[in-house]
Amino acid sequence: MTPRFLPCALLALPPTALAAGSDVVGENLLWLAIILMAARLFAPLANRVGFPAVLGELLLGVLLGNLALLGLNYFESVRADPIIAFIAELGVIVLLLQIGLETRLKDLVAVGGQAFLVGCVGIAAPFLLGAFLVGPLLLPGKETNTYLFLGATLAATSVGITGRVFRDLGKLSTPAARIVLGAAVIDDVLGLVILAVVSSLVQAGSVSLGEVAGIVAKAVIFLGGSIWLGRLIAPHSSRWLARVDASHSMLFAQVLATGLALAWLAHAIGLAPIIGAFAAGLLFEPLFLKDFERPAIVREIEPLLPDDHGHLAARLRPILLRHAGHQHEHMIEPIGYFFVPVFFVLTGMQVDLRTLADPALVAVALGMTAAAIVGKLVVGLFARQAGGWIVGWGMVPRGEVGLIFAMVGKQLGVISENLFSIIVIMVILTTLVTPPVLTWLLKRQKD
Amino acid sequence: MTPRFLPCALLALPPTALAAGSDVVGENLLWLAIILMAARLFAPLANRVGFPAVLGELLLGVLLGNLALLGLNYFESVRADPIIAFIAELGVIVLLLQIGLETRLKDLVAVGGQAFLVGCVGIAAPFLLGAFLVGPLLLPGKETNTYLFLGATLAATSVGITGRVFRDLGKLSTPAARIVLGAAVIDDVLGLVILAVVSSLVQAGSVSLGEVAGIVAKAVIFLGGSIWLGRLIAPHSSRWLARVDASHSMLFAQVLATGLALAWLAHAIGLAPIIGAFAAGLLFEPLFLKDFERPAIVREIEPLLPDDHGHLAARLRPILLRHAGHQHEHMIEPIGYFFVPVFFVLTGMQVDLRTLADPALVAVALGMTAAAIVGKLVVGLFARQAGGWIVGWGMVPRGEVGLIFAMVGKQLGVISENLFSIIVIMVILTTLVTPPVLTWLLKRQKD
Repeated sequence: MTPRFLPCALLALPPTALAAGSDVVGENLLWLAIILMAARLFAPLANRVGFPAVLGELLLGVLLGNLALLGLNYFESVRADPIIAFIAELGVIVLLLQIGLETRLKDLVAVGGQAFLVGCVGIAAPFLLGAFLVGPLLLPGKETNTYLFLGATLAATSVGITGRVFRDLGKLSTPAARIVLGAAVIDDVLGLVILAVVSSLVQAGSVSLGEVAGIVAKAVIFLGGSIWLGRLIAPHSSRWLARVDASHSMLFAQVLATGLALAWLAHAIGLAPIIGAFAAGLLFEPLFLKDFERPAIVREIEPLLPDDHGHLAARLRPILLRHAGHQHEHMIEPIGYFFVPVFFVLTGMQVDLRTLADPALVAVALGMTAAAIVGKLVVGLFARQAGGWIVGWGMVPRGEVGLIFAMVGKQLGVISENLFSIIVIMVILTTLVTPPVLTWLLKRQKD
Repeated sequence: MTPRFLPCALLALPPTALAAGSDVVGENLLWLAIILMAARLFAPLANRVGFPAVLGELLLGVLLGNLALLGLNYFESVRADPIIAFIAELGVIVLLLQIGLETRLKDLVAVGGQAFLVGCVGIAAPFLLGAFLVGPLLLPGKETNTYLFLGATLAATSVGITGRVFRDLGKLSTPAARIVLGAAVIDDVLGLVILAVVSSLVQAGSVSLGEVAGIVAKAVIFLGGSIWLGRLIAPHSSRWLARVDASHSMLFAQVLATGLALAWLAHAIGLAPIIGAFAAGLLFEPLFLKDFERPAIVREIEPLLPDDHGHLAARLRPILLRHAGHQHEHMIEPIGYFFVPVFFVLTGMQVDLRTLADPALVAVALGMTAAAIVGKLVVGLFARQAGGWIVGWGMVPRGEVGLIFAMVGKQLGVISENLFSIIVIMVILTTLVTPPVLTWLLKRQKD
């Protein structure tokens, strides 16, 4: 349990360094075990008091990351460990791949009009509010890039958290939920475009309208192009791969390898890897994957169903069909259980609780949270007949995307340690406050 | 695609280094995508010509690792990348966890007698042959530790490969298969004890009978103790965890976190991490995990089955029960699809094909392979009524364990680059030669 003082020694280790007694790599096994198990224990505790699991993981991270304040330094080395950091990266990539897989492209197209409007307003209002009003007001004297980044972190609704809140409340099929989910996806995509624009601005140093247009064009071409090309190729590659080997492992490898490869490609052309992972998720339709072997339980039950349309058999068939169609999502899930919490726990670990000792910073965090909420509630005006406030509050939770923006900003040097802590506090507060308010609004609507 | 010249820069990167444009971590995404996909393509090709998938993965590694001979240097940096190495480590740990989960402790106890005898002879004969006869004969002038390690790499049958060969031939339920599988597990455990003894001898420099007894005792106490204690605790911890959250993610986290934690513990007390992972796998019985939620498809179908004992319902119930009982194994599988090939591909990449240009080394490799085969065929004498030759040939394939031994020896400095290549060639040849011979023997037996 000795902390690592010479992390560079890690690189001198040959593969399977573990077996030879390297404590550096060996400790990572224990960290992963602790993060995996503790995240699973914190998530249901958060659920039990009405909060989404992701909040439990973030709070666990805040706890582990600040144990040093109590004199426990064991987790200090995790924070900067490159292997744990890479596993966290895989975590966000897998999460966005999952969100992409669970989103049907045609649903995105179908909600069209209103969701697009809500999505655009929902991203523009908090971005403008954060970058040009609240940022300069609460934190005077910073550079323009910092304000732009701040606006960007306020912009993106978390598809995962939003969807989960509605699902937990059993309201996924209401019109408000559909608009919110559609808008949240559009919102996510636009948010990623904003991230690409703002990041490039920071890296290039200056900004011209032509450059902005260039970045937007790159993001749109990458997203549109990879989805369009991918959907042209995927049915054929799936058929060919299934002919080579129709097993689940091949199906799994095709989906995950596409996610990793597009994440790499997005990264290579200067976009966020998660954009690539999300695009990869949108590529695959259950129909494309029909040539692969169905799950073992389906293959065993199917031949038992009589050919005639018996009552039981008729009710079982759609269940079998549905599970067979979604097996690629089911197979990615355990990968997510393993990798995704590492990202959220590691993110929580970046919060420095000593920030809270400074009343000025706490005031800024509360001001930012208010801006984050007001910026999203504005969209309620554009979705009145679907229950304006419900749609507005449905857009309030921030999550993975906002946190990713904050991380990128931190790396680019425009988001300071303090500002990062403020943003994580904002994400936690928006996520904390939404479920009780939404529950109250949805119950009042029913009465 | 630039090779990494300053790997230490990696450590300076904060988490989510990717998004900010670090090519080092970004490239790992592409490598993983390539390894994942290529391994899936090579495995069925190997299967198609009658070889187990693991051979395809090894050969893929040999190919990728020697592309530099053709002037393609892209994969050179993968070989020494610490992140890929850690993922490979996780690969063997997950593999041994899976093998442990698929092995029923009572089956190990039940095959008892004959399997134990076959296992002991099957480990002793090739070890003695390799360490004291073939080693000194073919490679004169090396230190004693090198011969001991060489003997150890010849000793352990691959449970995975052996089981797979019998399964691929549809002969898993024959008496010969049962003995071979039981013996291979005992063989694996004894092999790991030999590894612990030999490694400690190399590290301590000298050897006393007391020390050997101490190492054997440590291994036996760790294996026995962790399994005994674990099986006392697991039913209670499972019940408690299922009460906190009965979801699949909790079940998955309990099993995987136990595997990682015991791998760490084994490593911390100086044993191979895989011993811990195997012990963790043996801990969990489906019965212990009965309080967790059943798979979604089972939960949907069950309420549809009529209460009376209808014909179809009666046939469906056992299928549902079986799948519910094995869901923890099914959930670990995708993790294996992702991690395990990285280990085998990376292992194959350590083979230097230039070794083959030296006729003396090729002769040694062939001699070693002959010793590896003869050493195992000896066990046939102890299992005559179950079909002696079939049992003997069933024990011939070497695999993950032998390769792990070779890796450890390479790190300890007693296995040279050349010798490592020889061992990998031996592993590949024993695996190549077994399926055709076994097929022929099994067909002859039927006639």
